[in-house]
Amino acid sequence: MAVYTDVTAEDLSAHLARYDIGELLSFKGIAEGVENSNFLLHTTAGTFILTLYEKRVDPADLPFFIGLMEHLSRRGLNCPQPVKMRDGETLGELAGRPAAIVTFLEGMWIRRPQVAHCAAVGRALAELHLAGDGFAITRVNALSVKGWRPLYDRARDRADTVAPGLAATIAAELDHCEANWPGSLPTGVIHADLFNDNVFFLHDSLSGLIDFYFACNDILAYDLAICLNAWCFSADFEFDFAKGMAMIAAYQAVRPLSADERNALPLLARGSALRFLLTRLVDWLNVPPGAVVTPKDPLEYLSKLRFHQHVKSPTEYGLA
Amino acid sequence: MAVYTDVTAEDLSAHLARYDIGELLSFKGIAEGVENSNFLLHTTAGTFILTLYEKRVDPADLPFFIGLMEHLSRRGLNCPQPVKMRDGETLGELAGRPAAIVTFLEGMWIRRPQVAHCAAVGRALAELHLAGDGFAITRVNALSVKGWRPLYDRARDRADTVAPGLAATIAAELDHCEANWPGSLPTGVIHADLFNDNVFFLHDSLSGLIDFYFACNDILAYDLAICLNAWCFSADFEFDFAKGMAMIAAYQAVRPLSADERNALPLLARGSALRFLLTRLVDWLNVPPGAVVTPKDPLEYLSKLRFHQHVKSPTEYGLA
Repeated sequence: MAVYTDVTAEDLSAHLARYDIGELLSFKGIAEGVENSNFLLHTTAGTFILTLYEKRVDPADLPFFIGLMEHLSRRGLNCPQPVKMRDGETLGELAGRPAAIVTFLEGMWIRRPQVAHCAAVGRALAELHLAGDGFAITRVNALSVKGWRPLYDRARDRADTVAPGLAATIAAELDHCEANWPGSLPTGVIHADLFNDNVFFLHDSLSGLIDFYFACNDILAYDLAICLNAWCFSADFEFDFAKGMAMIAAYQAVRPLSADERNALPLLARGSALRFLLTRLVDWLNVPPGAVVTPKDPLEYLSKLRFHQHVKSPTEYGLA
Repeated sequence: MAVYTDVTAEDLSAHLARYDIGELLSFKGIAEGVENSNFLLHTTAGTFILTLYEKRVDPADLPFFIGLMEHLSRRGLNCPQPVKMRDGETLGELAGRPAAIVTFLEGMWIRRPQVAHCAAVGRALAELHLAGDGFAITRVNALSVKGWRPLYDRARDRADTVAPGLAATIAAELDHCEANWPGSLPTGVIHADLFNDNVFFLHDSLSGLIDFYFACNDILAYDLAICLNAWCFSADFEFDFAKGMAMIAAYQAVRPLSADERNALPLLARGSALRFLLTRLVDWLNVPPGAVVTPKDPLEYLSKLRFHQHVKSPTEYGLA
């Protein structure tokens, strides 16, 4: 939620000469994106977003992220479309950082999503999974099952300061997920972070998906499990059956789940809850002194994990 | 440079129903304004800025600030124009904060201004001084000569940690300014903070003035002295005669200075340098632990003050 790198009008105007998007009228650093610096640009050709990729993004991943947005928007998905420079390149350099310009999507994210919003997200997620087919570059999900134990190792010693018994709960869940994680479900490009603030709506219609910087190749149904966790619980972390049912039905209307995928859903939901519990826990335990940003509460995902641990059948998520 | 208050799409959409500026399409918190939270809004009617006034702004000053922008834009000055609600009000409340919406000005601030930019600023400043005439509300300048000694008292004990002898230099200058400060020069509405980042240019033409949150009633020529300090020194704090000459000539083409104003210019420039030296020094000595923002270097204004102390005639600023 910050602008990490200072960009001058003089440098940006010079940079835009490489593009065919008109003349710069104004630009504002926007408080969006935890990892990168983002600027909203007005030019004589319209509105754009300039992203400067900061230290936490591996430059080797940029061809995947930018290529994916190009691939998906070419397939008709509403997502930021990287703008090509006159020489055909989409990745440049500005203020010493890798830099890309993408089209601007109007729309707002919804703080308190309703059933209809969850359905729209289910449909868009399935469309993303289909549209990702054929994308040539791959990217391993560093935050899938193999990445969780190293996170646990970083949090273990102090986990119980956050909640009594938390270390043991996580250790047992980790063992369970590692032992049972499915190896043969359909995989493809997943968004992997499709939370509320990455989905824009206009007049209750989904207008676009943003922030593909966790996207990777992984089990497609795991992405749905992430969305069930992110969208289908109430404010006090109770599962909302109506939302789950709407999301899954809308997903299946575009991309029906196989029997194996359906049966794996409770486990995938547990794994997804564990993943966000772990990353939030690590962030919670490592807040830099004087930090302005409050880290997200890890215990939200402990509640969600406990719900999934008691699920006996995928029908409890609303699967018809 | 931050967004201090969180605004939801739901709350903002409801708030906009009080206005006649179309439907909300998107909004982004922007990294602008040290004191307040600012959001860039796209609506079906255009682009606007929403400002939420945070703790550091005295609500009693808001009718002055907002009324002044209305007054100046009605007089043809290019500045943000407060948008009236359907009931005629310009000041509302959102997220528990006083809130106003103003028109958006395209343009960018210039990092390395040239002589022509300084001339444009001189002209715009004089236009502002004329346009401010007749504005009914007044506001005392808390950062004029009477406000400096309290700042010095806060910084005195640690001033020499910033530069050897700084406390004595400031004390002597303070005595000089207090003893000689002019009491009978023309006064009116001044901007009082017309630094580079508050002046927008498009294709080297000045497109607007922003940030009226230091505006107040004070000596008009003091505002020009602030601009000479802010715009007419080189990167290594040498006075740039060509810029000074251009700025003063352009100012006088719109509002000629009286003989008294001309003669007072060196003293007003000293006072203005002292004012920014003092506020920067206090900020420098009071950086909160872990702060992200680097305070501005007070010693820049010590250099400028030393220049002004050696000025023997206003012609040294480029006065014809």
